[in-house]
Parts: sequence; structure tokens; C-alpha cells
Amino acid sequence: MSGQVAERTSGGISGSDAGSLESLCRRMAGDAKAAARKMAVTSGASRNRWLRNAARALRERSAEIVEANAKDIAAAPGYGLSAAAIDRLRLDAKRIDGIAGALEEVAALPDPVGEVISGGRRPNGLEVSQVRVPLGVIFMIYESRPNVTVDAAALCIKSGNAAILRGGKEALHSNKALHRILADELAACGLPEHAIQLVPTTDREAVGILLGLPQFIDLAIPRGGESLIRRVAAEAKMPVMKHYQGICTVYVDSAADAAMATRIIVNAKAQRPGVCNAAETLLVHRAIAPGFLPAAAKALAEAGVELRGDEAARAIVPSMVPAKVEDWDTEFLDKILAVGVVDSIDDAIEHIARHGSAHTESIVTNDVAAARRFVAEVDSSAVMVNASTRFNDGGELGLGAEIGISTDKYHARGPCGLRELTSSKWIVLGDGQVRD
Amino acid sequence: MSGQVAERTSGGISGSDAGSLESLCRRMAGDAKAAARKMAVTSGASRNRWLRNAARALRERSAEIVEANAKDIAAAPGYGLSAAAIDRLRLDAKRIDGIAGALEEVAALPDPVGEVISGGRRPNGLEVSQVRVPLGVIFMIYESRPNVTVDAAALCIKSGNAAILRGGKEALHSNKALHRILADELAACGLPEHAIQLVPTTDREAVGILLGLPQFIDLAIPRGGESLIRRVAAEAKMPVMKHYQGICTVYVDSAADAAMATRIIVNAKAQRPGVCNAAETLLVHRAIAPGFLPAAAKALAEAGVELRGDEAARAIVPSMVPAKVEDWDTEFLDKILAVGVVDSIDDAIEHIARHGSAHTESIVTNDVAAARRFVAEVDSSAVMVNASTRFNDGGELGLGAEIGISTDKYHARGPCGLRELTSSKWIVLGDGQVRD
Repeated sequence: MSGQVAERTSGGISGSDAGSLESLCRRMAGDAKAAARKMAVTSGASRNRWLRNAARALRERSAEIVEANAKDIAAAPGYGLSAAAIDRLRLDAKRIDGIAGALEEVAALPDPVGEVISGGRRPNGLEVSQVRVPLGVIFMIYESRPNVTVDAAALCIKSGNAAILRGGKEALHSNKALHRILADELAACGLPEHAIQLVPTTDREAVGILLGLPQFIDLAIPRGGESLIRRVAAEAKMPVMKHYQGICTVYVDSAADAAMATRIIVNAKAQRPGVCNAAETLLVHRAIAPGFLPAAAKALAEAGVELRGDEAARAIVPSMVPAKVEDWDTEFLDKILAVGVVDSIDDAIEHIARHGSAHTESIVTNDVAAARRFVAEVDSSAVMVNASTRFNDGGELGLGAEIGISTDKYHARGPCGLRELTSSKWIVLGDGQVRD
Repeated sequence: MSGQVAERTSGGISGSDAGSLESLCRRMAGDAKAAARKMAVTSGASRNRWLRNAARALRERSAEIVEANAKDIAAAPGYGLSAAAIDRLRLDAKRIDGIAGALEEVAALPDPVGEVISGGRRPNGLEVSQVRVPLGVIFMIYESRPNVTVDAAALCIKSGNAAILRGGKEALHSNKALHRILADELAACGLPEHAIQLVPTTDREAVGILLGLPQFIDLAIPRGGESLIRRVAAEAKMPVMKHYQGICTVYVDSAADAAMATRIIVNAKAQRPGVCNAAETLLVHRAIAPGFLPAAAKALAEAGVELRGDEAARAIVPSMVPAKVEDWDTEFLDKILAVGVVDSIDDAIEHIARHGSAHTESIVTNDVAAARRFVAEVDSSAVMVNASTRFNDGGELGLGAEIGISTDKYHARGPCGLRELTSSKWIVLGDGQVRD
């Protein structure tokens, strides 16, 4: 049982005992690889049964989770966590019920494994089909809230993969309790015991060792601050699904509906400023700026947003703070917005190419030609017309759930759901065909 | 013009002039990135026009190509090329016509750019669609025959990408002539002049420099021997589309039609033994081995194949060479076949998991359950039933053309055609939607 591995090793591993850390990581990765082979031939029914049983077990054993969580909460001030961060870390019966509910939602999604992507009959009579298969072993490295332990396990198992989970030290006790409950339900559903493993130490070196094992691990997914993601991307010898930043832009075109544009920028900036699909930059066409900016600035100020404007923007709304050069390249993750006036849609597209992070951009316009140009020429994972950047999200785009958002162009781009956790395999059925 | 860059720099660059090599490579990569932005918004019609015009130009200017090729042929013995290799390098009017014909075939394929992959209307009225977009800049590193210069350029341009091509030193003059002709046709079709660039030096250091520029290059594709591919994969800071080896296996099940199995293994091994989808290993179920192996060995011997058998195989066909341990892990790329007898389909699947390269495996059987198990449990890019492994090929599987075969699970697996040279972008159309 993974739980037993955790018991055996937790506390006993440290940087001074690198040999056993190395062997622990290699054993975990090897066990995950073996589990992944078994997972690839499990039925969707047994994976769904596990999701529903695990949801029930989380609710039934919530006292166990709350007790473990109390240890993390007690230790949190020692890690320098803010009151808000401590609140996000806290688990109670209601939050546990929500986490369990997410498992049930994943159970209800279609099984991506075995889906036929393309296929047909060839002239020589061969029947060929390209079908989805699991990726294999997914290594998830995350910070912050312990619900990620459950969400990541759910998406990996649903898509037929094995998962190695590595949460932050602030949530170690909570994560261990959650993992134990999830793992306890595997065997009864016919799933391999090492399908979900939690790295039982928060030693940073363990991450480095695991990232160096591409023969066992097929994909690494870091979720957290930019420095964590950069470290994982630099060290990983396997593919990494990631985005570094979300420097998202709303461009208000000359043909925009000003009231709609205000509604969209207030939502994109202020509805949840700490997330990657929140807007960080507002670009306004010169022709509409005098009619749009004063009311928009008022609405943004009422939402508590600090505006940092360029010269032209400040000429219209003098209360704006002067924007510094670096503001155009900053993911504020806060109620701060850089505001610039541009002469044309070309300038807006060029600004985005130069300063954006290829995450999400939105144009507000009633001009069909402008909308079509923006959508065609802006090279971001999601490009929107007359909608808030906040919609770049797996749930909102219809993927059902997401494990993260990718700004890379290889494999997956934008929100990554169950399909993005799969690969494919060509199946060729014949009756003796050979090549001429 | 790219051709002018080549003129300016060819011959002037060497390892002793690393600064200018570095600046040449950075300039080429930056030019490619700028060209890729323009390529992304070109029409399929203009890309197809280029393909057809380039085909015509190759035929019209074939004397120019043959003249350049003569320099490579003259230099070939100095590079230690065999007579067969020199023959593969040679270009004449007939071969050039074939190369031009391949361009016309690519022109006739559907445009992958803009294809809607998925989409629909969300409950809040947003219309979302995930559409194919080009990857960006593709860096192709290849050895051997100069037709790859034309094929790679064709697939990259058709899929809306910019290409940086780097062929082998043996074909440098031929590649320069082919590239010049291809590049000369770009402007008239409205395509950017740096959409196709040829690295004008065969200095190995240039490859290393380009592989270190992920900010400009989105994908590297090495084609050639395993050592080239391993070097590219180790050095590249961007994704690499590749396979190292094709250790492909044919498993003859107890329920096989022996005559069909013989036809398949002879084709899989001997029809073209030097390619990656040729079989290297034959596994035979113990129950059918006495009835199958003698006739199969005879047919394989007639096709010039050397058999290296395990003890059980040699007990039935004593003329086989004893197989060495390393034979099970060797891509012979020659008329040599390792032959083993297994006790069960489980043993065959286990052998493939242990010794295979996840490229192509085929089972010969008339047993539905065995076929279903083999297809489900063998984790290779293509798994076949009653067909030659030689069908793992873009043309044979209906992709139209291929730029290579991937045995990785991330992004593309199996033959890589036009779709595999694309990424995707989410388009979201609204009328003022914001998130609650």
C-alpha cells in the first residue's frame, strides 16, 4: 500500500540521507510505471466506481481529514502564511463535501480512453483507427490548497493514468490524510495500489530526482507560482504542461460598445484578480478613449482597482498613476491594471505580441472585420470577442474540469482537461495485408 | 532573400568564427519567427499556389539542380559514402520530377489550418471553438537524401509554419540548389521570404546554437541515425518530434493462419529492411512453432534473411544462428531477424514491453480474444492485427504524407502528417458575457 510506504519513510528522509531519498523516488516512479500499465486496461466503469467511492469515503472520514488539517493550520503561522492563505488551507465538513462533489462531477464526464479520434477503411481493406490511450505516469507538483490533491488524482485516474502527487509543505498532513483515503478505495475497484502515490516528504530534492526519471514519468504538471514552474521546466527531462504567466489584455476597439467594454474590463480585472486569466492590461483605441475611459476608470476605481496609465490615458483620466515601463510586462495578480491608448488595432496586436504571455486576450468591438483580424492575428491560447478573459477555463469552455492551463503550443494549448491527459495509438486490423 | 543570406555566408563560417555563427543562427531564427507570424495568416490558396509553382520550378530548373548535385556526387567518395549511398544521393530529371510530384500531392491535401477540432454553444450563449493553428517555426535536421529538403519544406509551408532546414554535408550543394528554387517562388505567392531557410553551413555547432533558441523555434525534428536523434533530443530546449529506434515485433499466435503469418513476416522483414517499421523480432507461440517455423524459415531464407533463434526455435530449425542476448534489443536495419518461441500471448506482450521500442507490433491470429488483448495491452504507436508492420506510415494510414514517426506519447504518436504540425487556439465569441 502506498500509505505504508508513506508511513515507513515520512520523517526518515532528509537532504542528509540522499541515497535513500533517491531510492525512494526511483521505487515510487517504478511502481507508478507498473501501475500505469495496469491502469491502461481498466474499464471506465471501475475508474468511475473509484471516483464515487472515494467521494463517499471523503465524506465519511471527514473527521480524520479535519484532524490532520488542524496540524497544518497550527503550523501555518510558522511558515509565514497570511491570514487569507491560512483560510484557504482550512478544511471543514462543508469544504470536504465540495471536494467530494468534484469527484462525482468527474465521474459523470465521458471516458476519454478508447475514444476514436479518426479512422476509416484504406483502399487495401485495412481498417485503421486512431484511439485515445492514457499518457502513463503524471507527476503533479503543486502548492497551496489541499483540494488539488483530490482534483489531480481524480483527473489522472479518470483518464487512465497513474499519478505521483507532490503538494506543498504547508498542507502535508492534510494531503497525507486525503491521499490515504483515496488510496484505500483503489483495491476494491480493481485499480492498482500504486495508481495514486503521494511523495511522503517535502524535501525539495525529491522533486529534482523525480524530474530526472523520464523512463518512468511521462508528464510533469507544476501548478503554483512562476518560480516553481520555471524550476520544474528547467529540471524536467520529460514534457511539462504549464504556463508561466497570464498577462492578459482587453483591447477596446474604436467600434466598441463602451458600456459593454466597461463591464468586461471590470469583470476581467476585478472579479478574481489573483488568477491567471484575469486581465492585467487594458488597451484603448484613441478614437474611443475620451468617451470610454472616464466612465471605465470610475467603475474600476469603485471595484478597488488601481490604474497605471500611459501619457495619453492620463491626459484623459489624470488620477491614474503613471505607468512604468515594467508595468506592461507584469502579472500583477492584484487589483492593479496597466492602461494604454493605441492608435490602431495593429498597434494593439503588436503590443500583445511584444508584452503578452500568449494566455488570453479579448477584443471588445462591434466591427466584424476588426474581430476577425484580432482572432486571426493574436497568437494566444484563447482569443475572445466581447467576452471577459475569465472565460479561459476548462469548465467554462466545456471541458468539464481542468488540471491546468497551457500556453505552450505542443500537445495541449489552453485549458487542459481529460483529453489533454491522453495520447493516441493507431490500431490496424487486416486479413493478411502486406506492402507492395 | 534567403538565397542571398546563403550566398553571403556560405564558406565564410567555421568553428573558428563562432561569434558570427552565433549571430547567423540567431538572425535566421529571429527571421523565421517573424515569418511564422506572417505565415499564420496566409490563405490556404496561397500556400497551395506556392506548392504547385515550386513543383513547376523544380522541373523547369532541373539542370541547375543536376549541376549542383554533381558537385555532391564528386565529393561523396571523400565522405566515405558507399556506392548505394551515392546512388541515393544522385538526382536526375526523373527523380526531380518525382520530388516535384510530391509537392503537388501535398497541395491536393486538405488545409489543416483553421480546421475546427471541437466547439459548441455554452449555456451562457458564448460560442466556443477550438481551431487548428500552425505551430510556428520548425527546425528540421536530417541526413541523407536531398528530397527531404523539398518534402519537409512542403509539409511545413502547407501547415502554415516557417521552416529552418539543415541537411547533411554530403548533400549541401544539392540542398542549396533545391532551397534556392523553393525560396524563389515564395514572394510571388505572397509568402514571407524567410518562410523557408536553409542553414548555409554544415558546421555541427550551428545545430547546437539553434537548438538552444526555444524563444524562436517551436519544434525540432531530427531524421536520421539514432546518434543524430539522441544528440538533438539531449541538446534541444524546445520539443522534439522523434523516434530513436524501430524494434518492431511480429507475434504469431497459436491461432494464426501459418501461410498468412509467413507472408506477413517476410514482408515485414524483407520488403525494405533498412526502415524503422521493418520487423526485427519474430515471436512464435509454442503450440504453432513446429507447424509454422520450418516453412517460414525457408521463405525468409529465400528472401535472404539471416535468422537468429533462441534454443526452442533452433530445436525446430537447427540452421538458425544462435541468438545472442543483445539481439533482442537490436534494430538490425538489415536482413537479420531474431526469432523466439513463447509459451503464451502474455509472454509475447511481456517480451515486447521489455525489449520493444514502442514503434509497431503486429499479432497474427484468428482468435478474436487474443487480437483484442494484444491491441489493448501492447503500448506502441501502432498495433496491428494480421497486417505487416510496414503499414505504420503516414501514406498507408491515410495522413497523406508524413514528416516522420513519433514514438513519444506527448503531442503526436505514430506517423506525423500535417495535423501533427499544428497546435490549436480557442476562439470565444460573445456579446458582452462576464463571469459571475
